Amino acid sequence: MELKEIKEGSLVGIETTEGAYRGILMPRSELADKGHLVIKLDNGYNIGIEKSKITQIELIEKKREKEEIELKKAVSDPGKVNVSILATGGTIASKVDYVTGGVHSAFSADELISAVPELQGIANISGKQVFNKFSENVNPGDWVKIARAVYDEVKNGACGVVVTHGTDTMGYTSAALSFMLKTPAPVILTGAQRSSDRGSSDAAMDLICAAQFAAKADFAGVFVVMHGEPSDSYCLIHPGTRVRKLHSSRRDAFKTVNDKPLGKADVNGNIEYLKDSNSYRFFIEKNKKDRLELDTKLEEKAALIKYFPGLNPEMISYLVNAGYKGIVLEGTGLGHVNENLFKSIKQAIDSGVTVAMTSQTIFGRVNMRVYATGRNLLNAGVIPCEDMLPETALVKLMWVLGHTNKAEKAREMMLTNYAGEITKRTTVE
Amino acid sequence: MELKEIKEGSLVGIETTEGAYRGILMPRSELADKGHLVIKLDNGYNIGIEKSKITQIELIEKKREKEEIELKKAVSDPGKVNVSILATGGTIASKVDYVTGGVHSAFSADELISAVPELQGIANISGKQVFNKFSENVNPGDWVKIARAVYDEVKNGACGVVVTHGTDTMGYTSAALSFMLKTPAPVILTGAQRSSDRGSSDAAMDLICAAQFAAKADFAGVFVVMHGEPSDSYCLIHPGTRVRKLHSSRRDAFKTVNDKPLGKADVNGNIEYLKDSNSYRFFIEKNKKDRLELDTKLEEKAALIKYFPGLNPEMISYLVNAGYKGIVLEGTGLGHVNENLFKSIKQAIDSGVTVAMTSQTIFGRVNMRVYATGRNLLNAGVIPCEDMLPETALVKLMWVLGHTNKAEKAREMMLTNYAGEITKRTTVE
Repeated sequence: MELKEIKEGSLVGIETTEGAYRGILMPRSELADKGHLVIKLDNGYNIGIEKSKITQIELIEKKREKEEIELKKAVSDPGKVNVSILATGGTIASKVDYVTGGVHSAFSADELISAVPELQGIANISGKQVFNKFSENVNPGDWVKIARAVYDEVKNGACGVVVTHGTDTMGYTSAALSFMLKTPAPVILTGAQRSSDRGSSDAAMDLICAAQFAAKADFAGVFVVMHGEPSDSYCLIHPGTRVRKLHSSRRDAFKTVNDKPLGKADVNGNIEYLKDSNSYRFFIEKNKKDRLELDTKLEEKAALIKYFPGLNPEMISYLVNAGYKGIVLEGTGLGHVNENLFKSIKQAIDSGVTVAMTSQTIFGRVNMRVYATGRNLLNAGVIPCEDMLPETALVKLMWVLGHTNKAEKAREMMLTNYAGEITKRTTVE
Repeated sequence: MELKEIKEGSLVGIETTEGAYRGILMPRSELADKGHLVIKLDNGYNIGIEKSKITQIELIEKKREKEEIELKKAVSDPGKVNVSILATGGTIASKVDYVTGGVHSAFSADELISAVPELQGIANISGKQVFNKFSENVNPGDWVKIARAVYDEVKNGACGVVVTHGTDTMGYTSAALSFMLKTPAPVILTGAQRSSDRGSSDAAMDLICAAQFAAKADFAGVFVVMHGEPSDSYCLIHPGTRVRKLHSSRRDAFKTVNDKPLGKADVNGNIEYLKDSNSYRFFIEKNKKDRLELDTKLEEKAALIKYFPGLNPEMISYLVNAGYKGIVLEGTGLGHVNENLFKSIKQAIDSGVTVAMTSQTIFGRVNMRVYATGRNLLNAGVIPCEDMLPETALVKLMWVLGHTNKAEKAREMMLTNYAGEITKRTTVE
């Protein structure tokens, strides 16, 4: 068959002098010159093939035209619990655009639900679109929108809420919901690392596992449920304040930091808890409706500054002059920064800015009493954030400063464990 | 025995109604109120003990007075290679101060060598003090000092150089030396997570393994050698541009990111390579003296900005106005930031600032062609840093901008693999 007879977007088999390939024929774009064509393999990767080496091209399946997804009308089953799916965008709602080779948002909440018929077997599912954004564009104000939407769903009888969300900033949003919501129903964020029209997509499995846990969890709180390991065996259940995307592309990119994940959930609804029930003391007991609370007050003038050799003290002064109320430092090791920053940090604190310390090691705990550097920073009034993730500390500081402008109260709140974000030391040091 | 008869700093055994403890009696300090005393356990941790619960105190060993370490005169053995140890400070040169309970620098290079007699069996060891700093205080200018000192040692006949360094910013310094030095001798950074007077100190083992590798390595380049796993079995050999401190306190805190470590070294001089020799193509063959080159040109006006939801575009404009020549963004996922930053990023690039993208996922690679966000940033001129660590990308950008102020040359250099910091994709995407 001739290449020109095959429509872009079709599934093709190509034999070359160097081997055979099978994939979707991509449009000529900036990625390929005239001497190459590009196909998208089943694993989601694009490869370029030299035209001069092609010996045969076979059309396996014509380009599928946009399918109209028929929205299935959910039938309420009184024997099942109600689970709401709130869609906010991200890769889970995306598909590959075969014109640009890129990925864009395509599915609404209803379309997502219809595309995954397994959901209807798990619970009475209803869906709402909160907004449709890739998560790098999610702002602190969007956390408030999501928190309000979750609150409404729980108030209206949802026994569990699944929030579909882009993976890039899912950890920040899960931390924000953890502080903003006290909920008698489990709230589960999930998403996908690969879009749903890729063979290797994790979209359906993540969504099903999240819905299973939303329907069956023994306790409430805010969680992230995402692919647990390279194969499709289970998803991990991560606490909302301790979860971090630790790989740019792997499906099992999300890890619980400084603790074990809470458990595993699979598509069949098997839930395995990895921690004893004592560990869940910060998660409210399920189905105590009177415990539903929403508290979205937020001070957005807070910044996360990662320390690096050469960081100029003027960066701190700039933030103070620009009206920032809080700064989370991502220091080195046990919670250090260069001594040439001490003066500007002290000035920031003296002028009413709350400054908190975390570590760029990601894993481990700050301990600012071991070295003189740490003790000097403590004496200046820097708040040591224990084993809190830097990202969680930033979100928490925004939330704390939404509630107080008093330094002592802010310190007390930053060091209070509201949602499992801090594990206290067991020894005095 | 009465508590008041025991000198602070002495080793004591304490029996209480709740159990028995053994450790160094610490001075009363801000850590303990009048009702408590504090002892430092063998594992290095301090614990507070309620005085009212103490049933017996036993003096096990009186406070040791400052020991004068006798400097051993090294005897040159023509059958052994010459290894230089350059000391820059850090925990490896520290001990606990029993007055404050803190840790401070105590040992010079000569004292370090004398304190670890095993070193003399490995090579003809000589030592020099470059400076004495905790590594959070190491500035880009200090990288130049270390690079020059290493250059001098190799030029003067060292077959291997060990640089002792604080662990907090060791990864930044190892990246800097990787770009600044072409060396026919292996250059090994090492340090300690726990000071040498703690029972759990890793100082001696790390130093011995580093010296073993300095003496026996089959190839040259810049490496970090640190504890490999929780026990004392071996150290790992990390490439200088891919190593990161990934725990605040564990002895095995250092990990090679996006690759395997190069190998293992133990105190007995066994070297096990974990990668095949092809992987070492960026490390210069050992003992080709003519290959020694030093190139320390550095532009210090470069910043690392970690993206977070709420990051204000004015932060970018501030850096441009403050005269910064380069910005490394630590974006989300595949290399994204909020679309509300595009304009300020474009303006920065248009005004001559080099902007490069890395990922805060730490692991994985940026891929800015998958989503519109990434493509828009590429179109604006942002340089995608492949699988380079954000910290390495910052150091590299400082070094690149020390060599050119032309945008296209800077881009070309940032995307050139100089010292194993980039692994290219094998597929076109």
